[in-house]
Amino acid sequence: MKIYRVNLDELKVTEELVKDTYSLLGGRGLTSQIILDEVDPACDALGKHNKLVIAPGLLSGTSAPSSGRVSVGAKSPLTGGIKESNSGGTVAQKIGKLGIKAIVIEGIPKSDDFYKLVVDKDGAKLEVCNDFVGKGNYETMESLLEEYGKHCSFMTIGPAGEFKLQAASIAISDPDHRPTRHCGRGGLGAVMGSKQLKAIIVNDEGTTPIPIHDKDKFRKAAKDFAKMLMDHPVSGGGLPKYGTAVLVNILNEAGGLPTKNFESGRFDKAGMISGETVSEKIEERGGKVTHACHPGCVIQCSQIYNDKDGNYLTSGFEYETIWAFGANSMISDIDVIAMLDRMCDDTGVDTIEIGNTIAVAMEGGVIEFGDTKGALNLLAEVFKGSPLGRIIGNGAGFTGKAFGVRRVPVVKNQAMPAYDPRAVKGQGVTYATTPMGADHTAGYAVTSNILGVGGTIDPLKKEGQLELSRNLQIATAAIDSTGFCLFVAFAVIDNPEALPKIVDMLNAMFNLELTGDDVTNLGISILKAELEFNAKAGFTKLDDRLPEYFYEDEFAPHNTTFDFTGGELDSVLKFD
Amino acid sequence: MKIYRVNLDELKVTEELVKDTYSLLGGRGLTSQIILDEVDPACDALGKHNKLVIAPGLLSGTSAPSSGRVSVGAKSPLTGGIKESNSGGTVAQKIGKLGIKAIVIEGIPKSDDFYKLVVDKDGAKLEVCNDFVGKGNYETMESLLEEYGKHCSFMTIGPAGEFKLQAASIAISDPDHRPTRHCGRGGLGAVMGSKQLKAIIVNDEGTTPIPIHDKDKFRKAAKDFAKMLMDHPVSGGGLPKYGTAVLVNILNEAGGLPTKNFESGRFDKAGMISGETVSEKIEERGGKVTHACHPGCVIQCSQIYNDKDGNYLTSGFEYETIWAFGANSMISDIDVIAMLDRMCDDTGVDTIEIGNTIAVAMEGGVIEFGDTKGALNLLAEVFKGSPLGRIIGNGAGFTGKAFGVRRVPVVKNQAMPAYDPRAVKGQGVTYATTPMGADHTAGYAVTSNILGVGGTIDPLKKEGQLELSRNLQIATAAIDSTGFCLFVAFAVIDNPEALPKIVDMLNAMFNLELTGDDVTNLGISILKAELEFNAKAGFTKLDDRLPEYFYEDEFAPHNTTFDFTGGELDSVLKFD
Repeated sequence: MKIYRVNLDELKVTEELVKDTYSLLGGRGLTSQIILDEVDPACDALGKHNKLVIAPGLLSGTSAPSSGRVSVGAKSPLTGGIKESNSGGTVAQKIGKLGIKAIVIEGIPKSDDFYKLVVDKDGAKLEVCNDFVGKGNYETMESLLEEYGKHCSFMTIGPAGEFKLQAASIAISDPDHRPTRHCGRGGLGAVMGSKQLKAIIVNDEGTTPIPIHDKDKFRKAAKDFAKMLMDHPVSGGGLPKYGTAVLVNILNEAGGLPTKNFESGRFDKAGMISGETVSEKIEERGGKVTHACHPGCVIQCSQIYNDKDGNYLTSGFEYETIWAFGANSMISDIDVIAMLDRMCDDTGVDTIEIGNTIAVAMEGGVIEFGDTKGALNLLAEVFKGSPLGRIIGNGAGFTGKAFGVRRVPVVKNQAMPAYDPRAVKGQGVTYATTPMGADHTAGYAVTSNILGVGGTIDPLKKEGQLELSRNLQIATAAIDSTGFCLFVAFAVIDNPEALPKIVDMLNAMFNLELTGDDVTNLGISILKAELEFNAKAGFTKLDDRLPEYFYEDEFAPHNTTFDFTGGELDSVLKFD
Repeated sequence: MKIYRVNLDELKVTEELVKDTYSLLGGRGLTSQIILDEVDPACDALGKHNKLVIAPGLLSGTSAPSSGRVSVGAKSPLTGGIKESNSGGTVAQKIGKLGIKAIVIEGIPKSDDFYKLVVDKDGAKLEVCNDFVGKGNYETMESLLEEYGKHCSFMTIGPAGEFKLQAASIAISDPDHRPTRHCGRGGLGAVMGSKQLKAIIVNDEGTTPIPIHDKDKFRKAAKDFAKMLMDHPVSGGGLPKYGTAVLVNILNEAGGLPTKNFESGRFDKAGMISGETVSEKIEERGGKVTHACHPGCVIQCSQIYNDKDGNYLTSGFEYETIWAFGANSMISDIDVIAMLDRMCDDTGVDTIEIGNTIAVAMEGGVIEFGDTKGALNLLAEVFKGSPLGRIIGNGAGFTGKAFGVRRVPVVKNQAMPAYDPRAVKGQGVTYATTPMGADHTAGYAVTSNILGVGGTIDPLKKEGQLELSRNLQIATAAIDSTGFCLFVAFAVIDNPEALPKIVDMLNAMFNLELTGDDVTNLGISILKAELEFNAKAGFTKLDDRLPEYFYEDEFAPHNTTFDFTGGELDSVLKFD
């Protein structure tokens, strides 16, 4: 295994051995540790001292099911703290197969040139690629596919990343070489843009399988684990059938679907944007209801969504995206929402951040709630980089300041996902306390708050939420290091035999004798590294709070507020 | 003495007795203490929990020379910390004469209506004034003059304050009832705008002179002090003759005049925008070279600047304004700069913040450096509230993020004034450490660094700068509480008999036996209150640093960097 260090200042790539202390780290565990070790927490996130670290999970590239997540880490220009953003797509497996533990991208070019990084079995090299500047992710990936062939995966930025906008994402190619998977959160596309790196091409042709110490043990554990994923009603039922959008009706029913910029919890047109409706339209138009974002995924929650004429429109069309442009922006035309999703993918912006931003802009009077043409136009402005587009592309907090909006749903300046913290209180605890800024995946309390996974906790009450969020955050940090998709968590939470299978795979691969406790300790050590970085970056307890209106404005239909004290929130991630 | 509490939520004004602990506080000392006592440091600066506190200095309204400063305090939407911004103009004296210690403005109206507050000898009342919404400060003050008469002074916000933009100022009327004096820094106009308060009218008709315990002693001290001010070469010579713009040639000569967005320290066209040139044009066009911003000022550094046709164009045309739009934006046409000053006054934005912002926008490619039409257009956009105007009106930090600019000269998100911290290092120490964000007045080290006032300290070296900044910050906090203009400091620093005269005036007025040490202790206690607020608002040591490029990019012509360590900066305001 090796680490590639890519220096844009000197335009050279060096290969390094992996430090012993990094040998059992992967994904988020590795990106967060390298960022803590190498990046000055006080640095300008878009300056030459920040670094972008790309790391596949520990199991990515093996036959472990649904293990194709890639983590990207950096100091976030959006939050000012540490960020790990992970994504599916096909790149993690190829990086893993190439024996690359991490790619560390540092420095800023002395000229205005943009570059691409080409990685294959023979090494890694930088090349100028100014001809791609200004191009969207779809066009860029089409060109890359033509030039480098279908054995390659791509990581690219769109115009938003080039403009260094704080909502900019890094697109990851899906099995069809389309830019539908994203490291969306925290503006990591802007960090890549600040380094003038437009694209990374990863070609795993000619590689041999990843060495596994005990192949039989690994194969058995992987097979058992795949069955457990398929046997669980969420990962084996709801997700493959309806995609993540299955949650629209569920959250709406629960009164926790933030509607009209988090004004209330039910959208009267939820049925028009539900997972059921999406699946129906996909079937009618000859798309694909079930689709894997990377080979070897058994959950296959993605889809191919075609337009009215049966032509491909988008893929990776997620619940949070549909919610953000739908209920939260009061748009009920699912085809418009699909087009907005595609435009985000093409421009290279996070759909959660931008969907929230559109709703904030609507509240600020820039356009009306529900204005489909207006919303499409705002996305087009981001692509163009007009002044209005620069505002929108910098996210919800920025747009709220531009237009004097009081209700701006951000924590650490990152916009909240699709679960109101007053109606799904465990989720609110995660938003407040995760080192990542408002993030649902960091501790997905929707499980027992709403889905009945891992028992039942009343989403409207405080009881049990602090401990739930803490435990989920620890487990998630560990899972985010393995390469497994977070959606394996449903089975892991409900089936006591699932976690041992993950441990078996790790032990079989690396010749170890880890236990379940080691996994917990790994999660804790990752969180501690991230909290240490944030403290050194100037974060205080105040950064672990929700905006004041969540404590004051009652949220219909349950008329609850977010009522955790500062002391309660501060207890969640207090480690010795 | 009384305090008026103006509640915009309930639309009522109540009169309160002054607490004993506030009795010897005025100006900045009082605003900062009330903000610390009453405002939750974690609150949304533009939300209902922030308060706007207006307090004249302790001596404002008396015959003490040059004592007409008014302080306005709040949590700043620009910096996120405490803010005191003081200004000349005629309002402080009238508030003082009315026996008002402070006006505390709190709450936010339930409706969209805008209000005005009318204060006279009979009390204070709120009235709807929606007809003024959208109007510039010039038009607003003209209307108020017509309605309320020339005995009144005004405090108003322009469109920028209504839009709640972070560079929004509060305009204070000058003796000609024009909006040429401003509480400019820190976006306090946005706080006033968030409370939907468009104007404050202060009428002191019918008041009796402020009670003075020992009138003879007061009169003598005031007279002696006035002579000292007039005898000093800066306050009695350079400032009355050339205004503050006398500094253009001096800083340019010293290589400390930030040019082209702080790229280097000399502007080859400095002569075209110098105080000497300004005075010459004023003479030619029948303006006034010497002009007081309030009755009783013996320094009279203001002026009336007419256009080419001899018609009034602007007043209060300061060095920092001329520098920001001039050298820093590479504009050498002084008439354009005067027009930009007027547009800032009319729109209600801080010239230092906006001048810096224009330069940052130029660096970001929005317009070219030196583009006069472009700069005028950007100001017009702020008045209109277009998306581009919203970006510019939110200041340099915001604009830097919008356009991906690396070199953005801010501390605590507030833009730096007209002295480069690498070439006037004492000033850099003040920028970094004052609780106010980059602010020259908070500890004006230009005195001994450049002007030879209070001895001589090499501006390019570190020696003596930490202690100098500390002492100046303490003295300034005290002076800002008296109502005296900071320009009395030149005499106070150079003439050991001057401070005792200030102490005599305070003792004579309030029947006290203060000493010089008490003044120092007052300054320290104010700084401690401000630092306490900022710590509770989440500020850490990292907020007391300059942007990283000041440590790394050498500054011509002296090719110096800012080289104070964190520990050195942290020592400046360390009190027991």
